[in-house]
Amino acid sequence: MYSHPERLTALIGELSKLPGIGPRSAERLALFIVQGGATAATQLAQAIIQAREKIQACRVCGALTETQPCAICSDPRRDPETVCLVERPVDILSIEKSGIYKGLYHVLGGRISPINGIGPEDLNISGLEKRIAEGRIREIILALGSDVEGDATSYFLAQRMAAHAVKFSRLAHGLPVGTSLEFADELTLSRAIEGRRILE
Amino acid sequence: MYSHPERLTALIGELSKLPGIGPRSAERLALFIVQGGATAATQLAQAIIQAREKIQACRVCGALTETQPCAICSDPRRDPETVCLVERPVDILSIEKSGIYKGLYHVLGGRISPINGIGPEDLNISGLEKRIAEGRIREIILALGSDVEGDATSYFLAQRMAAHAVKFSRLAHGLPVGTSLEFADELTLSRAIEGRRILE
Repeated sequence: MYSHPERLTALIGELSKLPGIGPRSAERLALFIVQGGATAATQLAQAIIQAREKIQACRVCGALTETQPCAICSDPRRDPETVCLVERPVDILSIEKSGIYKGLYHVLGGRISPINGIGPEDLNISGLEKRIAEGRIREIILALGSDVEGDATSYFLAQRMAAHAVKFSRLAHGLPVGTSLEFADELTLSRAIEGRRILE
Repeated sequence: MYSHPERLTALIGELSKLPGIGPRSAERLALFIVQGGATAATQLAQAIIQAREKIQACRVCGALTETQPCAICSDPRRDPETVCLVERPVDILSIEKSGIYKGLYHVLGGRISPINGIGPEDLNISGLEKRIAEGRIREIILALGSDVEGDATSYFLAQRMAAHAVKFSRLAHGLPVGTSLEFADELTLSRAIEGRRILE
């Protein structure tokens, strides 16, 4: 039976390992790569190698960085008393885009999820405790996802670190800005009502 | 303003050049690659380089191949008197999957499309004429897409090669096997009626 050339099949296989890339997409991408310019293929391959080699987790906070510590941890203008706890490195970019936060970060690396076999020991909690033990941190903002697992993880952490002289806060729940009431689910609406603020 | 590390941005940029990969998908893929294993990244990069280097168009028919000529052109069991004309190398795989065709192929490399500035001179027509001039080919099956451009290209080729002692045929139009009438568009239905066959 006729099939793709061996190395094309191999490339399709490698591309299929990427998230969200099924066999059909992988074939389309592979055909594009082998039929495209040699320079384009080399640039793509080198970008993959370079990025994987040079980008590491920040030793302090866990952000993706090419320098140690990362640009935020080594920025003297950032407030070292406040740490925002996020699940994934990419969450830092989301919060930075808001432009309002001036503290530091800590990447937990996930959340507690018994169903997926992820316990507290699989997360970067000891790194956070070490940072707290250094004594500068006064507030930890829990910016985990607001589903059951995120809430449970936040609760677990607040309990576990209750002995430390550090305040815990979490991001406010409520209506997304610019959306209409009709698009809000009932849980978001009930949180928005609970968290209502008096107009001054 | 905080942003992704430089090489992560570069990788996102390279991935965005792939077909069907938008900025959000490219970011997701890049984060997966830099946070995944070093071996996985190297394997992906090497598969890209290897495939691009080793896979070429067959000098005879234009199929993607690692050998010259390709496995089909060099197979003595294939019927050298029949050539199936397809648009793209990947179309060969579709026809081979049917298992019924035993002739050779010729990849045109596209179809005539004045709107996209593709004329006959941009297609591999001279290669086909050279093969016809060698005198073995008796039938050319036009297996181009059955839209306006595909039909126009088929018509152009049949006209241009009318002087040669070679028969032209095209794939039958009709209902896809296993589908119900209600899903067939009216053009397909009218072609299916025109091409009806007497039951024997």
